[in-house]
Amino acid sequence: MTSTEHVPASLSEVPTAAGRVLDDFFARTVPVATAIAPVVGDAAGLVADFVRTGGKRVRPTFAYAGWLCGLSSPHRRPTVPDQSPADALRVCAALELVQACALIHDDIIDHSDTRRGRPTVHRAIERHHRREGWSGDAADHGIAGAVLCGDLALAWADDLVHGHTPAGADPAAPTPTTPPSPLPAEVGAVWAAMRTEVLGGQFLDIVNEVSGDETVESAYRVMEFKTAAYTVARPLELGARMAGAPDTLIAELRSVGHDLGIAFQLRDDLLGVFGDPERTGKPSGDDLVEGKRTALIALGLQRATDRDPTLATALRGLLGRALDDDEVARARALLTDVGAVDEIEHRITGLHASAVATLTAAQIGAGIRADLIAMADRITHRES
Amino acid sequence: MTSTEHVPASLSEVPTAAGRVLDDFFARTVPVATAIAPVVGDAAGLVADFVRTGGKRVRPTFAYAGWLCGLSSPHRRPTVPDQSPADALRVCAALELVQACALIHDDIIDHSDTRRGRPTVHRAIERHHRREGWSGDAADHGIAGAVLCGDLALAWADDLVHGHTPAGADPAAPTPTTPPSPLPAEVGAVWAAMRTEVLGGQFLDIVNEVSGDETVESAYRVMEFKTAAYTVARPLELGARMAGAPDTLIAELRSVGHDLGIAFQLRDDLLGVFGDPERTGKPSGDDLVEGKRTALIALGLQRATDRDPTLATALRGLLGRALDDDEVARARALLTDVGAVDEIEHRITGLHASAVATLTAAQIGAGIRADLIAMADRITHRES
Repeated sequence: MTSTEHVPASLSEVPTAAGRVLDDFFARTVPVATAIAPVVGDAAGLVADFVRTGGKRVRPTFAYAGWLCGLSSPHRRPTVPDQSPADALRVCAALELVQACALIHDDIIDHSDTRRGRPTVHRAIERHHRREGWSGDAADHGIAGAVLCGDLALAWADDLVHGHTPAGADPAAPTPTTPPSPLPAEVGAVWAAMRTEVLGGQFLDIVNEVSGDETVESAYRVMEFKTAAYTVARPLELGARMAGAPDTLIAELRSVGHDLGIAFQLRDDLLGVFGDPERTGKPSGDDLVEGKRTALIALGLQRATDRDPTLATALRGLLGRALDDDEVARARALLTDVGAVDEIEHRITGLHASAVATLTAAQIGAGIRADLIAMADRITHRES
Repeated sequence: MTSTEHVPASLSEVPTAAGRVLDDFFARTVPVATAIAPVVGDAAGLVADFVRTGGKRVRPTFAYAGWLCGLSSPHRRPTVPDQSPADALRVCAALELVQACALIHDDIIDHSDTRRGRPTVHRAIERHHRREGWSGDAADHGIAGAVLCGDLALAWADDLVHGHTPAGADPAAPTPTTPPSPLPAEVGAVWAAMRTEVLGGQFLDIVNEVSGDETVESAYRVMEFKTAAYTVARPLELGARMAGAPDTLIAELRSVGHDLGIAFQLRDDLLGVFGDPERTGKPSGDDLVEGKRTALIALGLQRATDRDPTLATALRGLLGRALDDDEVARARALLTDVGAVDEIEHRITGLHASAVATLTAAQIGAGIRADLIAMADRITHRES
C-alpha cells in the first residue's frame, strides 16, 4: 500500500484521507478531459476545485463511521467480494462527488451567486463568457456549462465508487497499488437508493415551494430524503455494509442516521434564521429572505395561524424578500413568541437523546461509539 | 432464465430485448421514487416514458454487436468475472439511460420545445406548473425539474450497468433470476471514458458555439467525442470487452466505430439541411435555423470564404434565424455550389469503405460481420 492509501484510524482523519483519494482521482481524470480539449480540461478543473474546496466532508465521515462500526461488530459477516479499508475509503470519498453534483445543480435551481464565499459554478462560467467577450447570453451559457459540470461530477462519483479509471488516463497518474474490489450487491443497492432519494427529495422540495405547500409534514418529508437519508443514514449504512455489518446493526445505524440527520437539518433551520453571519458565512436571516419552507418556518406559520391569523400574515410578509435588520429581528421574535423555536430545540434534544441511546445499546467498539456520540453532540449543537 | 431475460440472437432483436430490460428496471425503480412522494414518482415516470418512447436504440445495438464480435473471436480471452449474455444485454440497455440524461439536459441547453414530436421534459414540467396554477416562474420550474430528471437518468444508468437495484424496491418487481456479475475493470474503464467523453464533447460544443469557432477542425473534434466515440466506438468496445475480445479486435472495432460514427454524424449534418421534414420529423433546414456549427456548414463557410468572401457573408446571413422556404433553398444552393455537399458525401463514402474494409478483414463470425456491414450501409445512406 502506497502512502496515498493511508487509511484513517479515527474519524478526525477522514476528511484529509478522503481528500487524498479525491486528489489522486482528479490526477487521473482531469487529464482525460484536457485531452478532449483544453476548455474541457478547464471545466473538469472547475469540478475538481469545487470538490477540493468543499466543506466538512460530513458524508464521508459518517460513511467511514459506518465502516468502523461494522468492523467492530462481533456479528460481522463476510462480504463478497471482501472489501479492504482502501475500498471503504474510496466509497466514502465518492460521496463528495455526488454532493458536488447536487450542489452545482442546486445552485442553478436556486439562482445562487455564491457558495462558500466563491462564485457558484454557473456564475464562474458566466463570468468567463463575459471576460472572453463571447457571443450569446452569458448567463445562459453559465447554466449550460454548469449543467454539464454537475453531470460530470455525478458520472465521476460512480466511476470512483466502483474504482474505475477512464480508459485513456495517463498511466503515470497515481493509481491504487491493489486493484479495487467490485462493490458487493448490497452496497450497490444502498448507493442506488441514496442517489434516487436525494434527487427525489430535491424534486419534492422544488414542487413544495411552487405549490405553496407550507405544512410541517411536507417540510419533514423533504428533510427525510434530501438530508437525513442522504447525509447521515445512507452513508452510515453504506460503510457498515462495506464491512459486512449484521442486519440488527444496520437497523440501529439507520435509526441513528434518521435521528441525527433530522436534528442536523433542524439545527440548520435555526441557524438559517438565527445564525451569526460571522460564523455561518451566510447573510443574516438567509432562510427568511430565500423564503425557504423549513420545518421551523412551517411550524411558525402553523402555530401563528392557530393563535392569531394576523400573526401568520405578518410572518408570511417577512418571507421571500429582502429584509432589513429590524425586519429580521421581527421575524425572529415572531418565531420565538409562537413557540416554534422552543419546539424545534425540543425536537433536536429528543432526536439527539434517541441517537445516543441507540448508539449506547449497539454492539460496536467503544472507540467508534465515543466518536459517533461526539459527532452527535457537535452536529446538534453547532453554531455554523 | 425467465422470459424477461430473452437474449437476442441477431442485432434486429436488440431494440425489443433492451426495451424489456429497461421496462423491468423501471418496474423496480419507479416505485422507489413514488414511495418518496407521488410527485417524485411522476417525475421518475417522465424519465421512464422518455426512455420508452426513445429512438432506434442505436447505442445498445452497436454494443450488442461488439459483444457478438467478441464472442465469435477465435482469440477470445476469459473475462473476470465471466459475463453472461444477460449481463451484456443489461450493459447495452444502460446506454439508453445515459442517452436520456444527455438529451434531457441538451434540450434545456438548446431551449428545445419538442423532441420526437412530444414536448421536451423541461417543457412538460413547465406545462404541468401552469396547469396546476403554481407560483413562481413556470419556465424556471421546468428547467429545475428537468435538471433533476436528467440527473436521475444518469444515476439510473450507473445502477443498471452494474445490475444494482435500489434498496427498498418492491420485492415482487421483476428481477433477474441469476444475479448480475460485477463489471470487469476493463469494461468499467470504457464506461468511465465514454461518459467523460460525451460530456466533454457537449461542453466543447457549447464553447465553440459562443466563441464563434467556425473551423472544420473544431466541428470534427466535437463529432469525434460527442458522436463517434459515444454513439459507435465506445458502445462497440464496451460490448466487445464484455466478451473478452482480444486487443487487435478492440482496435479494429474502435476504428470501425470512428469511421461509422463520423459518417453517421456527417449524414445527420446533410439531413439537417437537406432532409425531408416528412421523413426526419424535423423542420426543413433545421440546422441552418438553429445556427449549428456542423462540419457541413463549417466546410461551406470555409469554401465560400476561399472562393468569394461575399458568398460567405451571404451564407452567414442564413444561419441562426427563422428562414422562409426561399431562404432555405438559397442556403442549400450555396452549400452545394461551393462543393461542400459533394465533399461531405465523398467523406461519407470513404469512411463507409474504410469501415467495411476493416470489418471484412477482422476475425469475427460471418453472421455478425454481415449484420455490421448492413448497419454501416443503413446509417450512411439513411434518409431519416
